[in-house]
Parts: sequence; C-alpha cells; structure tokens
Amino acid sequence: MFFVRVNMTDRTYSVTDVPEKYKHLAGRGLTSNVIADEVPALCHALGPNNKLVFSPGYTTGTSAPTSSRVSVGGKSPLTGGIKEANAGTSWAADLGVLNIKALIVEGFPEEKGKFWGIAVTWDGKPKVEFFEATQYAGKPLAEVHPAMYEKFGEKISVCSIGMAAEHGYSNSGVAFNDQYKRPTRYAGRGGLGAVMATKGLKFIVLNRAGAPGVEIVDKALFEEGRKKMIDALRTHAITKPKGGLNSYGTAILVNILNEAGGLPTRNFSSGRFEGAPKISGETIFEKNKERKGKEVYNHNCSPGCIIQCSNTVYDEKGEEITSCLEYESAWALGADCGIDNLEDVAKMNALCNDYGLDTIETGVAIAVAMEGGLIPFGDSKAAIELVHEMGKGTPKGRILGAGAATTGRAFGVRRVPVVKGQAMPAYEPRAVKGIGITYATTTMGADHTAGYTIAPEILGVMGKQDPLSPEGKAGLSRAFQATTAFIDSSGHCLFIAFAILDIATGYQGMIDEVNGVTGNKWSADDILKLGGDILKVERKFNEAAGIGKEADRMPEFMMKEPLPPHNVTFDISDETLDSVFGEL
Amino acid sequence: MFFVRVNMTDRTYSVTDVPEKYKHLAGRGLTSNVIADEVPALCHALGPNNKLVFSPGYTTGTSAPTSSRVSVGGKSPLTGGIKEANAGTSWAADLGVLNIKALIVEGFPEEKGKFWGIAVTWDGKPKVEFFEATQYAGKPLAEVHPAMYEKFGEKISVCSIGMAAEHGYSNSGVAFNDQYKRPTRYAGRGGLGAVMATKGLKFIVLNRAGAPGVEIVDKALFEEGRKKMIDALRTHAITKPKGGLNSYGTAILVNILNEAGGLPTRNFSSGRFEGAPKISGETIFEKNKERKGKEVYNHNCSPGCIIQCSNTVYDEKGEEITSCLEYESAWALGADCGIDNLEDVAKMNALCNDYGLDTIETGVAIAVAMEGGLIPFGDSKAAIELVHEMGKGTPKGRILGAGAATTGRAFGVRRVPVVKGQAMPAYEPRAVKGIGITYATTTMGADHTAGYTIAPEILGVMGKQDPLSPEGKAGLSRAFQATTAFIDSSGHCLFIAFAILDIATGYQGMIDEVNGVTGNKWSADDILKLGGDILKVERKFNEAAGIGKEADRMPEFMMKEPLPPHNVTFDISDETLDSVFGEL
Repeated sequence: MFFVRVNMTDRTYSVTDVPEKYKHLAGRGLTSNVIADEVPALCHALGPNNKLVFSPGYTTGTSAPTSSRVSVGGKSPLTGGIKEANAGTSWAADLGVLNIKALIVEGFPEEKGKFWGIAVTWDGKPKVEFFEATQYAGKPLAEVHPAMYEKFGEKISVCSIGMAAEHGYSNSGVAFNDQYKRPTRYAGRGGLGAVMATKGLKFIVLNRAGAPGVEIVDKALFEEGRKKMIDALRTHAITKPKGGLNSYGTAILVNILNEAGGLPTRNFSSGRFEGAPKISGETIFEKNKERKGKEVYNHNCSPGCIIQCSNTVYDEKGEEITSCLEYESAWALGADCGIDNLEDVAKMNALCNDYGLDTIETGVAIAVAMEGGLIPFGDSKAAIELVHEMGKGTPKGRILGAGAATTGRAFGVRRVPVVKGQAMPAYEPRAVKGIGITYATTTMGADHTAGYTIAPEILGVMGKQDPLSPEGKAGLSRAFQATTAFIDSSGHCLFIAFAILDIATGYQGMIDEVNGVTGNKWSADDILKLGGDILKVERKFNEAAGIGKEADRMPEFMMKEPLPPHNVTFDISDETLDSVFGEL
Repeated sequence: MFFVRVNMTDRTYSVTDVPEKYKHLAGRGLTSNVIADEVPALCHALGPNNKLVFSPGYTTGTSAPTSSRVSVGGKSPLTGGIKEANAGTSWAADLGVLNIKALIVEGFPEEKGKFWGIAVTWDGKPKVEFFEATQYAGKPLAEVHPAMYEKFGEKISVCSIGMAAEHGYSNSGVAFNDQYKRPTRYAGRGGLGAVMATKGLKFIVLNRAGAPGVEIVDKALFEEGRKKMIDALRTHAITKPKGGLNSYGTAILVNILNEAGGLPTRNFSSGRFEGAPKISGETIFEKNKERKGKEVYNHNCSPGCIIQCSNTVYDEKGEEITSCLEYESAWALGADCGIDNLEDVAKMNALCNDYGLDTIETGVAIAVAMEGGLIPFGDSKAAIELVHEMGKGTPKGRILGAGAATTGRAFGVRRVPVVKGQAMPAYEPRAVKGIGITYATTTMGADHTAGYTIAPEILGVMGKQDPLSPEGKAGLSRAFQATTAFIDSSGHCLFIAFAILDIATGYQGMIDEVNGVTGNKWSADDILKLGGDILKVERKFNEAAGIGKEADRMPEFMMKEPLPPHNVTFDISDETLDSVFGEL
C-alpha cells in the first residue's frame, strides 16, 4: 500500500510507502491520525495549512460484503474541529484496489478561480496526472460528471465538488459516483467540499485498470469472516433481501420515529409531524409500485453491498426525481421544514446533490430560516427556490450555505439545533436520550452516525432500551462511539451494525475479515480499544482547536423547552455528558 | 444606592439595597460580577436567561471631570463570552444621581414584536414606569429620540436600541444621548443592543429631578483628587484645551498610525493607506474651518468632561453630517474599506448611529465582504448602500449585521480579522505588538480599549516603546488590562489615561476621587488588584462558556502573512500570550 500526496501549490505529487506508524490504521483511524499529526489545530480550515485525506477501510476493495466505504478527513470549516465523513461508492473500492492507503491533498494554489482535476491510474504504482477543470466549475454536478466518463472511459470512479464548495460554504460535501454514475454519494457533513475547493481541486478520477487489488494476508480467515458477515446480513430482518432497508430504504424510519415522538418537526418544535406518512419509505415504495407498474426494491450504492438500501423516487410519469432519498434527507427537507410533499422533497434532494450540499445541514438551515420568518413552514416551492439560491450564491443562499448556526445568527433565531456548529440529524434528542448524548459528545459535531444508539433505543437491536430514559445512556453512547470509530475504519457501511450487534457470529465475521486482510490477531476487546484510541486522537485535536468539554453541550432550548408529544426536555447532566469521554 | 431590577416578562420591577457582596464594586466591576453570578455561561445570549446590567462608575454623577461613563454588561451574542461596553453620556451621570448602582434588565416577554420603554424617576427612591414603544420600532434613532423629549421633557437622558438590535444582529449597540440630545453615544461592541431587544425594551428614560445625587463619604479627599485630576488633564498635551484631542479628536490618530505602518488598510492587507490624510482629524479640522468660517474645537460628549474630544463633520454647505466621527469609525468605514471620501465616511457613521450599529464591526464586515467580492474596495457609494441594507434587514444586510466573522464565513473569506468572533479595531497587531496581545487575550474579543498599549507604543505616554518589538509586551498588556478594568469601574473615560499615566499626581487624583466617594483607603496596588480581580471573574465566565486559552489566539493569517510596509508578522508565541492571564 502507498501514501499518495498531491500538492496543489505546484501540482506535483509523490508516492511513498506507508509510514510505519500508520500501518495498522485505515479509514477513519488513518484520516484522523494524519490530520491530527499534520494539520495545525488552529489553522483556518479554508487556508493553506489544512489538508484533505482520503482513506479506504481495511476491507475496502475486497470481496467483503458492504465494504466499499471511503473516509474523508480534514479540519472542518463548519465545526472548526476534526472531521471524518464517509461515503459508499465504487470510488472507495478503486482506491483500495489501487493500493492507496491514503490520498493526501495539500498545498494551496496561488491563482484563485481556477480548478484542476487529477486522474489516478496504475503504472507499477499509483500514478497521478493533472488536468484543467475550470470549465466544469459553476455547473450542476449531474451536468459535469458525464464529461469525466467521456474523457477517461466508462470504467472509472469519480470524486468531485460542486458549486456549494466553490462558493466556500461550510455546508458543502465531497461527492462520489453511485453504481449508475450519478454523483450522488456524499461524504456530506462538515464542509470538506469547501476545503477541496480552496485547493483548486474539482475532480479526482480513479482508474483501477491493471491495479493489483488489496492484498489479503490470511485468505482463509478472511473468507471465513466474509461468510459469517454475509450470513448475518442476509438473515437479519433489517438488512436481509426484501427486508426493511431493501424494501423501504432508510426512509423506513420516518414513520417509526414519528410514532416514537422523536421526529423533529418544524425546526425541532415538536417530535411528531402530521405529514410524516406522506414522506415515508412505505409511501415511496407504494408510489413507485404504482408509477413503475411493479414493486421496486432498492439497489446498492456501491459494489458488493448486499443490503441494497438505496431507493429511487419517481414522479407521476415514472421518471426519476432523485436517487437516493435517505431518511435523513426526507426528514431534513421534509418534516423539519413542515413539508409533506414527497415530490418536492425529492426535488430538493436532487438539487442538493447537484449543488454539492449536505441535505441535513440544508434542511435544518432552511427550517431555522423559516422560524426566522424568511419563508413560511411548509412552503415547499419557496424552499426549492432557497436551495437554488444556495446554488447561485446569492446573499440569501450564502447565509443558508454557511449552515444552520450561521442562519440562526443572521436571522436572530434562538432555537438553533446544532452542536459544535453542526446541525442535528433526524432524531430528537429530548425523545431519544442516547442519541442526544452522542450528538453532544462526539468529536464530529451533532452526528447520528458517530454512535447510533437508535439501534437499541428505537429498533430493538441488542434488546430494546427505553428512548425516554437517561439511564445507562452515557455508557451506551460511549460503547457505540468507540465501536463505530472502528467500523468506520473497517471499510464497512455502518448498517452492518444492525445485523452484527444482534448476531454474534456476524460481529466476529467483521473481526475475522479485518484480521484476514491485515494479518493482525485483534480480539473484540482490541477493536474496542482501537476505536477508543481514534476518538482520543480526535478529541485531542479538538481541544487544541479550542473545542473542549464546554462544547459537549446541547443548545439551551433543549434543556428548557418541553418537546411534544411526550413533553420531555434533555435532562442529562453535564457530569453525565463529561463521563462519556472521561471514562474512555 | 440601590439595585433596580426590571423584569420584562411581566413588566414589573423591584428596588432593593445593594447586596453586601457588591458594595465595593461599580461600573465594569459590578456589571461583570452580576453577569458572572446570575447568567448561565452557556445560555443563549438572545434567550430568556441572559441579562443586561447598567452600572455607573464610582465617580459617575459627581463633579469629577470626565467621569460620566456607564458600563453595560451581558453575555455577548457576538463573542459568546462576557461583555462590558461603556459609553460617555449624561444618562450615566443621571443613573448615578438617581442612586442606582445597578439597573438589571431580566426576563423575556412572551409576545414578540412588541416593544416597551421605561421611565425612571425619583420618588424617595428610584421609581420605574412602563410605556408602550412599539410605534417607535423600525425607524432611525434620530427620528424617534425626539419623541422621548416631547413625552418626558427636556431634562431627561435617553438610552435606546435601534433597528440593528430589533433585527437581532450580533452587531448592534446600546445608544445614549450626547450633550445635544443626539442618540450617538454608544456602548457599541458585542451586540448588547440585541440582548435589550429580545427583552422587548426599546427605551430607558432617566429623569434626575429631585434625586439626591451621589453621596461622597470624604468630601475633602474627593475635592483633592478632583483637583489633581483636573490639573493633569489640563496640562497634558493630548488632553489639554486646544490640545491633540480637543483640536483633532481621536481621528488625530489616522495620520499617526498610518505613519507607523499600523493603519489596517483594505481588510488588513496593508498597514498604510495612501488616502489616510483625507480622512484624518487634521483634515476634518481644516475642512470645518473653511466650511464654518472659523476654527471649530471639539465638544464634550457628556457633562463634566474637560477633554472635549467630540468633533462634528460638516458638509460643503456647513451642515452637520455626523457627530462624532471617532478615529475607529473613520478608520473602519474609511481605510479598512479603502475609502478616502471623508463625507461618505461621515455619512456611513451617521447611518450606523441611526440604525444602532457598531462602526468598527460594520466597517470590518464591509471590508471582509469587499475581499469576498461583494463590492469593490474603495466604492463608498456601494458601501453606503450596504449600511442601508443592514438597516433594512435584507439578506445581504443580515450577513453584515451578524458581524465580520459571519461575513467571512458567508463569503468564504479567509482573511478575517477577528478574535473570539469580534472584529479588530484600528491598530494593526503585526505592526503594534502590544495591542495585538491585548486583542488576543482580553476577555472581550478583539478590543483596543481593554488594554490600550497604544499609549506607550505609539504616543510615547509613559515613555516610548518600540511598537514592532514583542519585548516585554505581555507584561505591558497585562498591566494595562488590569488598570483599565479599574478605570472602567471608576466612571472615568479611558482617555484620562494619557494624562494620569504621564503625571503621577493625576493617577493619585483618580484614586483619591474614588476613595473620597466610597470611603475606602485603596492604594495604587489595591486598584491594580481590584482590576485584576475583575479580569479573573470575566475569564472564569468565558472558560465556563467554552472560551479558554485556545481562543486567546490571533487568526492564522496574522502569523503567516507579512504586513507591508514593515513586512512583519505577529510573532508572539502561544506561551507569551498565555502568560498574560497565567501570571495575573
């Protein structure tokens, strides 16, 4: 495996062996360690001293199921802290196949307003070529991605940034192709797209032709692990074929969270939305059936995924509006804005993909602006127009593009659901305490994927825990955060967790796969420690950036305003929050 | 003396004796202690749990010269930390005469969009009456202040907030009348206007009729101190009649800082502005002489001030454009925006006063937006239009109204001259190291008045120190910050410092005045300790708000980009910065 460093100051690159200290790391573990080692914590996230690191997980590029994830790391312009965002895409697998352990983008071009792309191929080792890409700036991504396939052939993978990133938005993601060449898979959160844009980098094209693939040290152990993992995924109700995710996608959660009173509605002023059923996964499935004349099950976002949870939303004529509409997006652009028009929500989702915006941050920012009086709650046409303004970079669009916290500041709104400057996702922390503890304490800013306690609290994975009870939730969040840091390094999609947390052999399967690839002999305890170590490195970076335990807090309104329908507040003490990292 | 608490939830009030623990405090010392004791550090600054505290200094309301200052304290919406901003105005003196040690505005009206005023009179003790003031909202302050005089008579003083505060801007000040009933004296920095607006409070009218005045415990000592102070102020070159400040106002500093290479120009990209002479105090004086047909010396902003540094800028017809145009304002709206048209700068200053905006934050935000490409540097007409947009609350105006840091975020600008979210004032820290240390370390966010080392570094007060040298500047800043915290409690204007730091009897005069009023026997060492104690209280609040030593840092570009003409960076180590409070 190699370290590839791309210097955008003079558009040169280097290929070196993996430094010894990083050899045991991959994915999030690697991106976070490189950022912590090489990026000054107090640098400007959009300045010359920030870096962007791409790393595939241990199993990414192998035949391990659901393992085509890539981690993207950097200092976040949104939170000011360390950031790892990951995505499922063939691009991830190709990075592994090209034997690239880390692709590090550094430097800073003097000339502004110009963009370049890089094409990475195999020539005995990874080889990088630069090409000018300024002509692709200022256009929707769906328009410009095809040009890459025309230029470099059909068998490539494409990473890119959109207009949101070009505008320097704190809300701007890094886009990757899905299985149908659509630029719709996002390392979306925290504004890493803008970091890539400041480096003048518009595209990273990967061509795996001739590359050797991922070396597997212990093939037998790997195969054993792989089978265990496949068995677990194929039998668990949530992940099995025609199971929950394959039928209804992640949007299956709309009705479930609404039922639980934990679906944040109209800028987190209620936990229940009367229009929820209209934007649910079940409704998408039923409408698609009607519009396509048959049951449409979901597809995979990336090669080798057997969960296959990505839906497509079709319009009345049976034409695609967007793919995929995740739960988080349906919620953010729907319930949180008081919008129940599925097609308009899908349209906004498509626009976010086209402009390079994170759907969660976008929806929450619009909802905050609605509370500030910019447009009414529920006005989907006006909301669509706002997303266009974000793409255009108008003053209104720039406020929203700077994220929910900035939108709150601009409109003098007090109910701003953010932690560390990042918008909260689709689970009301007052109604689901464990996820609230994750929001508050994760190094990432409010982030459900950092420690998805929804699994036990809502879905009954690992046994059902009462979402309204604070009891034992700090420990639960801590365990989930540490485990997740490892899963984010394994190359697997987080959704394997549903199956492997319920099916012990599946969990061992993940460990076997990783040990098979790496030749390590890690135990379950080891990987928990490895995960915890990643969190500590991230935490240390954040503290040096001025983000300490006082930033591990919920916004004040969550502690004061009771949330309907359960009329509950976020009643977790500071001491409990501090115990999450204090006892790590 | 009394504590008056005004509860805006139900529009009631209470008058009590001064609690024992606060008896030795006044001005900044009192506001900061009350805020630290009563406001949760992590509350939302625009929420129900913030408070606004007004307190006159020890000598305010007495015949001590240049002592009509009032401190306004709260949690700042701009910095998220503690804030004390002060202003010179008859309102301050009247507060003292009314025997009000602290006027504390608390609570939160449920009904939004309505405003009230309060009128405070003397009836054996302070008496508060409420009146509806919604009809005065949404209008420039110069239009609505006269209504207060019509309503309550000519002998009142008026405190108010403008449209910037009504919009909830982090850049919104608290306005007070000057000696000509103009609403132009501001506790400007840090967004305390918006805090007052969230409480639904538009006006605080004071009528001193019948009030007993400030009790002076040791009249002889007070008189002695007062004479020493007057002698110092009347003899020092900077503060004497027809001296520097009385002739040219604070804008005398334009040419001086420009000469020193420390006049931040075009968003802190140079320390010298070729158009500086055109916006200087000397030019204002010369133009006024021509336009009024005689030499016009400056006037006092508040009763009893013998420095009299407030200028008036007249147009070609001899009509007033604005009063007063301070150095900071001429610089922020002029040099920092690359604007050398004095009349347009004065016009912008008048608009800031009318809309309730801090001129420093406004100018710096516009300059950042200029760098972001919104309008060109030097385009004064477009800049005037932007100030109007701030008043109107358009999306563009809201970005700027949220301050320079938010403007940088919205426009993806990296060169953003702020500390703790507050815009830097008119002294380039790369060219004047001591003031840079003050910017970085003061509890207030970048603030020259918190420790004005310009006195020795530029003006030769206390002996001249090389502004470019970092040598000994941490200790200098520490001493100035501690002394200033006491001066801000004394009731005196900071400008007494020029005289009393050079003339030892003047310094003793300040101490004698305060001891005379209070009956204390404080020594020079005592007041340094009292000042330091205030800083420690503020620091503790900030730390609890998540603003620790990592926030005591300059923006990265200041350490990396050499500043013309001296081509210097801010070369002060983190350890040196930390020693300012570490050794307090």
